[in-house]
Amino acid sequence: MSRPAHRRPEYRKINKDLFVLTYGALVAQLCKDYEKDEDVNKYLDTMGYGIGTRLVEDFLARSCVRRCHSYSEIADIIAQVAFKMYLGITPSVTCNNASRNEFSLILDKNPLVEFVEELPTGRSSLCYCNLLCGIIRGALEMVHLAADVTFLQDRLKGDSVTEIGITFLKKLDEKKYRRKK
Amino acid sequence: MSRPAHRRPEYRKINKDLFVLTYGALVAQLCKDYEKDEDVNKYLDTMGYGIGTRLVEDFLARSCVRRCHSYSEIADIIAQVAFKMYLGITPSVTCNNASRNEFSLILDKNPLVEFVEELPTGRSSLCYCNLLCGIIRGALEMVHLAADVTFLQDRLKGDSVTEIGITFLKKLDEKKYRRKK
Repeated sequence: MSRPAHRRPEYRKINKDLFVLTYGALVAQLCKDYEKDEDVNKYLDTMGYGIGTRLVEDFLARSCVRRCHSYSEIADIIAQVAFKMYLGITPSVTCNNASRNEFSLILDKNPLVEFVEELPTGRSSLCYCNLLCGIIRGALEMVHLAADVTFLQDRLKGDSVTEIGITFLKKLDEKKYRRKK
Repeated sequence: MSRPAHRRPEYRKINKDLFVLTYGALVAQLCKDYEKDEDVNKYLDTMGYGIGTRLVEDFLARSCVRRCHSYSEIADIIAQVAFKMYLGITPSVTCNNASRNEFSLILDKNPLVEFVEELPTGRSSLCYCNLLCGIIRGALEMVHLAADVTFLQDRLKGDSVTEIGITFLKKLDEKKYRRKK
């Protein structure tokens, strides 16, 4: 069966290394531009936010995820569908509080740091992968979910694991964030 | 049969959009940093050179390309193996001179500009994808092949195709650039 010429393939994959090295060049450039680690982190987060707001539409279209009924389901989809789709990894998810709005994504492997042995000298507060936090934040905001997203632990800083914390800030408004059919 | 735990999979693919949007963020940052398009182009080329010098070893290991006997074969491998592997596209190759050291890669599609409708205002001399030229140049240099690599045409500048020109600068020294077994 032929398919319309304009339709894009569901998954368009490329080799990871080119992305990982280009990301490294981006971080290096920001370190050159901004003296303070906090400014680099902030800038990476802002860049990521912009990327997240653009990625989310494609993600929803391709992933065919169904409507979620809890923050827990959303955290699972980020880990099991989004991370798998975009970075080829599946972090494990833990819920960190009784009101079930704080979650951690535990990254066993982190492809973004594959070529990075340690943080650059004098850059001990750098959140090298902070783009990821911004992307998650931006994507969530586009489906009307405000969240704080930060690195809680980072192997590059000597922690035993890499952990991204997601705190959903508002009560879930199902009407707003559910996908349009 | 088990395989050694440290061995990496031959092809590790990720979704292209994340890379394309991150690359856009990198170019935007450089445009913010450098007033002149020529400086942005130069910087992208330099960054690409560094990336190329690191990618080439992995490329040779994974692609299993055989020893080449002519510039023409090398140009074909860049187009058919390297571009396919890293960007998922296969440019067509033309040879542009009688001494067979000048080639063009004609890119029908260019994933890097997928989210770019036009060059930013006042950036008419920007070679948006100049990272690619640097990568090719860097990778070739690591196998002892000096080359000039530049964009000859660019759809983003209104040309009918996107064309990367590769001019090999030295007589081929087979002993030097052939792969170690």
